Amino acid sequence: MTSQDIAPTQDIELSAETQTALERAEASHRHEALFSERAHNIKQSAVRDVFDISIRPGLVSLAGGSPSLTKLPLDLVAETASRVITEHGMEALHYGGGKGTLELRTLICEIMAEEGILGASPEDVVVTTGSQSAQDIAAKVFCNPGDVVLVEDPTYVGALNTFEAYQVQVEPIRMDVDGLDPTELEARIAALEAEGKTIKILYTIPSFNNPSGITMAAERRQRVVDICRGHNILVLEDNPYGMLRFDGHPLTPLRADNPDDVIYCGSFSKIFSPGVRLGWALVPKHLYRRFYLAAEAVVLCPSTLNQMLVTEFFRVFDWRGYLAESRAVYAERCAAMLDALAAEFPAEATWTTPDGGFFVWITLPEGIDTYPLLYQAIDAGVVFIPGAAFTPSDVPSNKLRLAFSGVAPEQIREGVRRLAPVIRAAVEAHRG
Amino acid sequence: MTSQDIAPTQDIELSAETQTALERAEASHRHEALFSERAHNIKQSAVRDVFDISIRPGLVSLAGGSPSLTKLPLDLVAETASRVITEHGMEALHYGGGKGTLELRTLICEIMAEEGILGASPEDVVVTTGSQSAQDIAAKVFCNPGDVVLVEDPTYVGALNTFEAYQVQVEPIRMDVDGLDPTELEARIAALEAEGKTIKILYTIPSFNNPSGITMAAERRQRVVDICRGHNILVLEDNPYGMLRFDGHPLTPLRADNPDDVIYCGSFSKIFSPGVRLGWALVPKHLYRRFYLAAEAVVLCPSTLNQMLVTEFFRVFDWRGYLAESRAVYAERCAAMLDALAAEFPAEATWTTPDGGFFVWITLPEGIDTYPLLYQAIDAGVVFIPGAAFTPSDVPSNKLRLAFSGVAPEQIREGVRRLAPVIRAAVEAHRG
Repeated sequence: MTSQDIAPTQDIELSAETQTALERAEASHRHEALFSERAHNIKQSAVRDVFDISIRPGLVSLAGGSPSLTKLPLDLVAETASRVITEHGMEALHYGGGKGTLELRTLICEIMAEEGILGASPEDVVVTTGSQSAQDIAAKVFCNPGDVVLVEDPTYVGALNTFEAYQVQVEPIRMDVDGLDPTELEARIAALEAEGKTIKILYTIPSFNNPSGITMAAERRQRVVDICRGHNILVLEDNPYGMLRFDGHPLTPLRADNPDDVIYCGSFSKIFSPGVRLGWALVPKHLYRRFYLAAEAVVLCPSTLNQMLVTEFFRVFDWRGYLAESRAVYAERCAAMLDALAAEFPAEATWTTPDGGFFVWITLPEGIDTYPLLYQAIDAGVVFIPGAAFTPSDVPSNKLRLAFSGVAPEQIREGVRRLAPVIRAAVEAHRG
Repeated sequence: MTSQDIAPTQDIELSAETQTALERAEASHRHEALFSERAHNIKQSAVRDVFDISIRPGLVSLAGGSPSLTKLPLDLVAETASRVITEHGMEALHYGGGKGTLELRTLICEIMAEEGILGASPEDVVVTTGSQSAQDIAAKVFCNPGDVVLVEDPTYVGALNTFEAYQVQVEPIRMDVDGLDPTELEARIAALEAEGKTIKILYTIPSFNNPSGITMAAERRQRVVDICRGHNILVLEDNPYGMLRFDGHPLTPLRADNPDDVIYCGSFSKIFSPGVRLGWALVPKHLYRRFYLAAEAVVLCPSTLNQMLVTEFFRVFDWRGYLAESRAVYAERCAAMLDALAAEFPAEATWTTPDGGFFVWITLPEGIDTYPLLYQAIDAGVVFIPGAAFTPSDVPSNKLRLAFSGVAPEQIREGVRRLAPVIRAAVEAHRG
C-alpha cells in the first residue's frame, strides 16, 4: 500500500512515517487475536523491571539476588576457559547431548553429596539452562491449565512467572518462622481437593526462601514430603542457596531420603556464576525420560562450552574452600544489614533473621503498600523489591525484600540509611 | 517404611533392593496420572536418538547437521574468552538483561544486514538460547492447543517436537523444487479455515530447508508472506543457513520487506559455534514485549559470558572472510556428496541439489521404508536420518537425509560407499 492508495478516500497525503505507524497499529490490532491464552498470563517481572533501574550509576541496589563474585579468581576462570577451548575446542564449541555432559552430571552429584544427597546417579540428572528452566520444564511436563501448584507465601517471583505462563492456579501456603506449616498445608490441600482441584506440585525453597530468608525446620521436612506423597503431589525442591548456610552445615534437602517423590533443582548461579546459565534437576527415575525430552525440545542441549568450563574449573579450583569463604562474605553482609536495620528502621518495622542465603524480608504495619515506596526509594538512591511481587495475587503488600548478597557492607549500610527515611515517613503517615 | 513393617502381612523378608524397586514401581504408577496432556506429545527426536549412536568410533556420521569448525581459529577464540573474563569478568559472569546485551543485539543487526535485512533495530531483537528456543517461545506466545501451525513438508524435526509439545496441529505443505508452493499453501489454508481451524503460524526454512536442502525461489517469497498476511497468519522464518549459500549471495529473507508480519530466527550455531547456544529472534515491534517476557520467564537471560565472547570474537575476527571460507568448505563437501551419490547410488534413487546449507535429501522408490534401513546402515558403518522424522505424521517414508556439513570429503565418500549397498539391496528387494 502506498500513500496514493489511501489518499483519495482520506483526502490527505500521509508522510511515510505516519504511514508506517498506521500500518504498524493496524498490524497490532490484527495480530492481537493471535496471542495464546497463556500469553496473557506472562507478565513483566517486578524483579526484572527493577533490574534495569538498579544498574543506574549511583544507586545502591538491594534489589537483585546477585551473588558476590569478588572472591572468584578471575585469572583462573580465564585460564580454564582458554585451556578448554584450546585443548577441547572441537568438542566445547559443538552440540552436546540433551542431558548435559556426563562429566558435569558427575560433578553435580559430588556437589549434591556435600549438601546431604548421597548416592545420586548422574543418570538421573538433567543439566538445564539455569534452574528456572527446570521449573519451566516441570510445569510443562506436569501441569494442565487449571491445575494447582502450591507455593510458599512468599515465594520466588521467577517461579511464579513460570507457573503462570502455564495457566496454573498458584496457591500460596502460609509460613511461620520455621517455614511451611504442615497443618496449614494439609488443611489447604483438603480444601482444594474438596473443591475438585487437581494439585500437581508443591514448589518449595526450603532453605533461605527467596524472598523471606526463612528456612523450613529440619523436623518439618519429612512431614511435608509425607503429606504430599499421601495426596500424590510431587515436591519440586528449589535449593540454590542450600550450601550457603552461614554456619557451614547445610540442612538435609527434602530430596535426600525421598528419591521417588522429589524433583530437586540446583544451580551454579549462586555458588559459581549466574553468567554461565547452568542449573540442574535431579529427577526421580520414573519421571526422568519425559523430563529430559521436554528439556531437549526447548534448547536441544545446554551450552557445551559452559559445561566444560564449569567442570574443568571445579576440578582445578578449591570450590569447597571458596564456598566457605562465600559463606563468610554473606554472613558478614547479612550482619551488616541486620545491624543497619536495627539502627535506622522505625520500631514498627520487623524483619526476618536468616541463617543463610541472600535475603532479609521486612514487614511494615498492615495497610502500608510498599510498591509506591519503591519510587520514593529510587529518588533517595536505593532500590528494593516490593513484597507484592512474591505472591500470585499481586494485591498490595506491606512487605519488601532486601538483598544483602551482591553489595559490600559499607554499601549495605548506605542503602539502609537512604531507605530508612522513606520507611519512617510511610510509617508516620500511616500512624497519623 | 522398613522391610519389618511389611514382613508380617507378606510373610517374607524383602531385600533392600527389592524394597527400593517396589517403592519405585509404586511411585511410578502413582505419578503416571500427574503428567500433563502436553507431556504425551513430547517425543524422542530421531535426530537426537541418532546423535548418541553417531559418536561411536568408526562410524561415519551423515546424520547430524553439525557445522564444520575446522577453519575456526581456536587460539583466537580461547584468547578472546580469556580476555573477556579477565577484563570484564564481573559483568560476564553475572546476570544480564532478558533481551540480551545491547552489544550483541547490535552485532546481530549487522549480521542480518549482510543477508539483506536492512535497518533492523537492536530494540527489536531478543537473544535466545539457540534458535530452537525462539520457536518454543513463538509456540508458547501464540498457540493454544488445537491451533494449526503450517510447516514445509519436510521440515526441521526439532521444530516439530517443539510445536507438538504445545499440542498444536502441525500441517505440512507440499514443496516442489522451488520450495513452498503458494497455490498449495492457499488451498490448504482455505481447507483448514473451512474446517473452522485457527491457523496461527507458518513456520518456514526458506533457504536450504532442513532436511531437504530446497530453497524457496525469490519470486515466491513475497507471495507467501502476502497469502499469510491475508489470512492473519504470522510467518516464523527460520534462517540458520541463509548466509551459507555457496555462491556467496544470500537470498533476501522474507522478513526484509515485511517487518510487521514476520518473526525472523537466526543462529550463531551454523556461522560460529553451536556450543555457545546463542540464537536470536527479530520480532515485529507490536509483538516484541510479550515475546521477550516469555523468553525471560524460561531462562531469565541468555548466558552473559557467551554473549560477550561472541560479541568480542566477531569484533576482532574477520567473520565475513570466515563465512566466505565456510561457504567454500560446504560447497566442496556438497559436491563430494553429490559426486559420490551419482557414482554409487542406484538409478532408482533421486536427490536434491542444494545451493547452500548442510543437507541432501534422497528419495527412494515409493513403498521403501527408510527407517529399518538405518539399522542396516549402522551395521555397515554409516548413519543417516530416516525421512519419517521430518514429518508430523511419523508414517513410513521413502526419504532420508544426508548431512554433508560436518565431515571431510573423504569421509563423505566413504560414508556414501558404505551406504550404497544398503540402498541397492533395498531397491532390488523392492523391485523383485
